[in-house]
Amino acid sequence: MDTDRLLQQLTDFLRIPSVSTLPAHSADCRAAAEWVAAELRRLGCREVQFLASGTHPVVWGVGPEVPGAPTLLLYGHYDVQPPDPLDEWTTPPFQPSVRDGRLFARGAADDKGQVFCLLKAIEAAGRPPVNFRFLIEGEEEYGSRVLFDLLRREPERTRADAVLIADMAYVAPGWPAVYTALRGLCYAEITVRSAKSDLHSGEFGGAAPNAHEELLRLLGRLKGPDGKINIPGLYAAVKRPTKAELTTWRRLPFSETQFLKQRVQAKALAGLKQYSVLERLWALPTFEIHGVLGGFTGEGAKTVIPAEATAKVSLRLVPNQKLKTVERQLAAAVKRLVPRHVQASVRFLHGADPAVVPVDHPAFRLLDRAFREVVGRGTVAVRAGGSIPVVPALGKSGAPVVLTGIGLPDDRLHAPNEKLDLKQLWDGIAVFKRFYELLGQKRTASS
Amino acid sequence: MDTDRLLQQLTDFLRIPSVSTLPAHSADCRAAAEWVAAELRRLGCREVQFLASGTHPVVWGVGPEVPGAPTLLLYGHYDVQPPDPLDEWTTPPFQPSVRDGRLFARGAADDKGQVFCLLKAIEAAGRPPVNFRFLIEGEEEYGSRVLFDLLRREPERTRADAVLIADMAYVAPGWPAVYTALRGLCYAEITVRSAKSDLHSGEFGGAAPNAHEELLRLLGRLKGPDGKINIPGLYAAVKRPTKAELTTWRRLPFSETQFLKQRVQAKALAGLKQYSVLERLWALPTFEIHGVLGGFTGEGAKTVIPAEATAKVSLRLVPNQKLKTVERQLAAAVKRLVPRHVQASVRFLHGADPAVVPVDHPAFRLLDRAFREVVGRGTVAVRAGGSIPVVPALGKSGAPVVLTGIGLPDDRLHAPNEKLDLKQLWDGIAVFKRFYELLGQKRTASS
Repeated sequence: MDTDRLLQQLTDFLRIPSVSTLPAHSADCRAAAEWVAAELRRLGCREVQFLASGTHPVVWGVGPEVPGAPTLLLYGHYDVQPPDPLDEWTTPPFQPSVRDGRLFARGAADDKGQVFCLLKAIEAAGRPPVNFRFLIEGEEEYGSRVLFDLLRREPERTRADAVLIADMAYVAPGWPAVYTALRGLCYAEITVRSAKSDLHSGEFGGAAPNAHEELLRLLGRLKGPDGKINIPGLYAAVKRPTKAELTTWRRLPFSETQFLKQRVQAKALAGLKQYSVLERLWALPTFEIHGVLGGFTGEGAKTVIPAEATAKVSLRLVPNQKLKTVERQLAAAVKRLVPRHVQASVRFLHGADPAVVPVDHPAFRLLDRAFREVVGRGTVAVRAGGSIPVVPALGKSGAPVVLTGIGLPDDRLHAPNEKLDLKQLWDGIAVFKRFYELLGQKRTASS
Repeated sequence: MDTDRLLQQLTDFLRIPSVSTLPAHSADCRAAAEWVAAELRRLGCREVQFLASGTHPVVWGVGPEVPGAPTLLLYGHYDVQPPDPLDEWTTPPFQPSVRDGRLFARGAADDKGQVFCLLKAIEAAGRPPVNFRFLIEGEEEYGSRVLFDLLRREPERTRADAVLIADMAYVAPGWPAVYTALRGLCYAEITVRSAKSDLHSGEFGGAAPNAHEELLRLLGRLKGPDGKINIPGLYAAVKRPTKAELTTWRRLPFSETQFLKQRVQAKALAGLKQYSVLERLWALPTFEIHGVLGGFTGEGAKTVIPAEATAKVSLRLVPNQKLKTVERQLAAAVKRLVPRHVQASVRFLHGADPAVVPVDHPAFRLLDRAFREVVGRGTVAVRAGGSIPVVPALGKSGAPVVLTGIGLPDDRLHAPNEKLDLKQLWDGIAVFKRFYELLGQKRTASS
């Protein structure tokens, strides 16, 4: 492998600050889409198109025809999370930098590096061994609404013998994984208003309500210090993991102490202590506060009593929960928990149902074999705490969704100093190349 | 009075965005100081100087000599509060606009309009009737640290027969007031850190601590929903108002219902319900949250678990409390209330001791008479909820500090749509002119 050239190409891709949630980066998202489209053309695609191009476009590609071979749909995303807090990055997020065999950049692991891996594995295979289809979107970090709409209108885009998604990580170094479930997401802004305008704390302090105070009391009621979320009905739909799953999870090379010290890097874990950490991460809903707006947050001192305050929050949802239901439950809980003299409203920004992914299709055995041959260990079936909103829609045609990835658990997705280990990338290219070849050896009825 | 010309001049002063807490406005603060200096020169000052000119300068002036007449020190400030939230202003904060006989602008009442009033009353008197000294500072909204240091080094600046401060309001329309006490202030940033870096809520949600959550629990513990501040020792030093004060307060034209509906403009009042609203505003300490920083507060959705969160908070202090003691009490309470796995720190931004202002000096009778003659009612002695940090220092020379003002209770200080009623301004000029004349008729031993 000409790793120098590959590294240069990936660096070019990572340099583009394609932050989908920030309107200021619209042009960058388009540039990232163009980068993907150029790669698809280089791979000999018969068709390369920007779909839903009113927004960050979905890049659609149809690979060279391979008569009699199965069709494999590759999904990934070229958009990335915002990079702040910037001052915690050792090197700037959009100036990719290699240190100790690791490539640091926003998007290195989530998901540009993995999209790159899928594409370069085709290049490495020489003549494509299967019929490729590509759906590389630009709004994954923003709810994938565009792709959802597209797949509702044009479900035939997902018609394939298998769907391959590389947006995940090994469960531990040396332990490749396939994922059987993803958590969903319900992202919202909760706003409370306690007066008509901001007030002066000298004139009014002691007698006027303070929106920040009302908001924090509301948030404190929505989730107790024990980690329990006080949203009536929320836990009712939650399906406990099977005994087989719990057994597998207990056998994984996962240490709660190491997880705390090396990955969370805090003094204590949080959450529902009566459940194992993996169960809290994979099989239970969460409620997190991401940021709080309102009042005065500039430099220096302003003695204002804020009239309005907003919290950006989200819930992760687990199998059997429904986004629509949870939205209703959250809105009702806010209404119920806020005092009568305070106005509260909830605005839903985006969300996704949780996903359950059956792993019994033969394609999973081929991937297991590819990993075994290249890295010396097959895949273990686990769940994931994160969300890829479009996974259920990608499986709608009935094709198995193979959800895997080449990241490592310490890649710091969505956080400062996101990275991808280069060994994972080179191994990944070899693994996917082998998977494509194994899949190409199967002649299927549907192709 | 040539009110058109005066209004034009005040408008010029108000146009300068002299926001002392924001470094970006340093040059504007200097421009406002220059505006004041030019006025002092126009009044025939023998000496006009910028003191402590390394920062926003203190404008010092010595008026024309009036042999045998008392010396009156005028204090005010040319700096203003930040104007945000900008979108709640009907007209822009630094484009003064008159509607219904009211002048809307940041600083209209606090304190540029009142400084203007003091100066124009001298102009109106023709030949100055007393020996004037001027101390017009530019950091009142930022703690007056510069002026404090100056007065410690050069206490002779305050040597006078009386000090006049116009930075306050009538207690109700038609009810001029002098103030016997001001609340102090303790402004701080409380920061909690729960992990080394921000984390991804998909990967870590359910098991990682969230700094926003830890911060809100801490803030929720520092002040209960009943308005009681849970800082051990805080209330111990608080001196209850005298029976005479409570009687005066009960007789004021103050309605709690009107206060709620017309001024707070909320659905309910907050605070310690067992005390009257005026007692809560004037005689009890407060704890307010002004803003919360940390995590993600941009547009759109970012699913980050913040590792650090900071609240900008302040306490108002009442007579007998000491800033230094309260700082210690707050720091100790934060340490005690935060869980062991969370790091917390408190940074004190600025503060002021509360002030008690005796009102038994003859100068108060002269001001009472001036108000009686011009507006038809003498002054009532009340307290104030706000802080003018430098008041105690201005009285250090033993001169009585006459703390009064021409504002009205609905001037919306520190808030959007701050205003000054023009009738109050014109009356105020006549009142202070008369006060200067009455004071000038007294020959004092010290002059």
